[in-house]
Amino acid sequence: MRIDVGMQKGGVGKTTTSINLAGALADRGHDVLAVDADPQGGLTLKLGYREQYREGEYALYDVLSEMGRLSLDDLDDLIVSGDEFDIVPSHIRNFRLEKHLYSEARGVEALKIALDRLTAEYDYVVIDSPPNLGPLADGALLAAENVLFPSNANTIAKDSLEILFDEIDTLEDKFDDVQISTVAAVLNEVGQDGVSNEMRTWFVETFGEEYVFEIPDWAAVEHAIEYRTSVFAYNPDDAGYPWDADKTDQLRTKYNAIAAQVESLNND
Amino acid sequence: MRIDVGMQKGGVGKTTTSINLAGALADRGHDVLAVDADPQGGLTLKLGYREQYREGEYALYDVLSEMGRLSLDDLDDLIVSGDEFDIVPSHIRNFRLEKHLYSEARGVEALKIALDRLTAEYDYVVIDSPPNLGPLADGALLAAENVLFPSNANTIAKDSLEILFDEIDTLEDKFDDVQISTVAAVLNEVGQDGVSNEMRTWFVETFGEEYVFEIPDWAAVEHAIEYRTSVFAYNPDDAGYPWDADKTDQLRTKYNAIAAQVESLNND
Repeated sequence: MRIDVGMQKGGVGKTTTSINLAGALADRGHDVLAVDADPQGGLTLKLGYREQYREGEYALYDVLSEMGRLSLDDLDDLIVSGDEFDIVPSHIRNFRLEKHLYSEARGVEALKIALDRLTAEYDYVVIDSPPNLGPLADGALLAAENVLFPSNANTIAKDSLEILFDEIDTLEDKFDDVQISTVAAVLNEVGQDGVSNEMRTWFVETFGEEYVFEIPDWAAVEHAIEYRTSVFAYNPDDAGYPWDADKTDQLRTKYNAIAAQVESLNND
Repeated sequence: MRIDVGMQKGGVGKTTTSINLAGALADRGHDVLAVDADPQGGLTLKLGYREQYREGEYALYDVLSEMGRLSLDDLDDLIVSGDEFDIVPSHIRNFRLEKHLYSEARGVEALKIALDRLTAEYDYVVIDSPPNLGPLADGALLAAENVLFPSNANTIAKDSLEILFDEIDTLEDKFDDVQISTVAAVLNEVGQDGVSNEMRTWFVETFGEEYVFEIPDWAAVEHAIEYRTSVFAYNPDDAGYPWDADKTDQLRTKYNAIAAQVESLNND
């Protein structure tokens, strides 16, 4: 099963959600691959693969563009083994990929085709999407057919989601056999103010209670990521933030619930 | 004179640089327009135009796309008067603009054509560009023909700039009469470590000493922007951060120097 962590708005926690969902699924005993489809390389850099991002020999660019040196069979060559889960890192060269995919025949389908040809086997593939509506973001929706959207609990969230849903409708119209399902909405940085309450209510009414997950606190997440892991591989004592222990546990519970939701949709 | 604040990498300080360059030029007595060409709307939101971003009746989308309700003459209608300088705010609807411009005849030229038809007169137009290499970013380069690139003093900066320069070469090849000049490199978050020193040296060797500006400290900039102004309109006492006063002065001196550099290129 593939899950696209997608939202055209930047700064809503896409990368953090991707890392922790991948970590939760791995912690539950699954083989997981995280694909960094954002040319900005947040997931790649946060997990410590700076060399790969800057100087890796091959990149998604090479696999997904006809002009590249590799072929669509070779996505396997990009996979880097990680302690928690494997990743296909981003590469600074991927900034050129988006433009390329616009003009390429089947450009939007390229990621799906490449993932279909993957020889390495994974239970779950988590795709971290770029913050726009370009062919890489569309390609991630198409490749996964399941979307989990992180959002802030602010008043722009409704508009952002409306735009994303229009995009999903357009893709479903263009590709007859494609049906994109909602996995979950992850509300980040939920505060105790009126706006947050109102938005939480709106999300629950719109998606149903079981599809809405709130992430209450960011510090422990950020500390985990400084440590280049999800909250599941993070040890607050080793990292020097012992006071994070309770919050880390709470966050594990939260992301575990999201992973369980993903599993239940996979079994339907 | 138009200046594009451009860099495909996100998180390097494009919006902060745009706001403070516009503020510096305004402080020096010029009429300035800041155009928020990033669908994420950082400049618009940071300057407090949240309503415009979410619910404004018209948007760049309407002006630059043939399907829109407005015509190319009507960029004037989007202008919002500000205390320091005027702005063309971004709009959440602009997320759809990028895709549209790819398929539109002369899509990349649309912003240039719209700015050429502007009735309101400005001494300087500062364009805050989105963090990718799509048609809005290309359009901003083409519309301005002058680019100022903010960068972090890290080792990815060289790669980022190489990619941006390739893009500029490609645009100059496609449009015979276009020549894009470097206004300045603004190095943000420069630390005292070896990497920062090495990168500073590389920038100075590459662009020449007079083209490289360092912004040493972010806190006062961030406080100013919380206050919805550039550092020039920001009063640390009123804002409740009196200890910012010295740093604010230093930052004014820095951005003033960049503005003076812009003026000198305008007079050449």
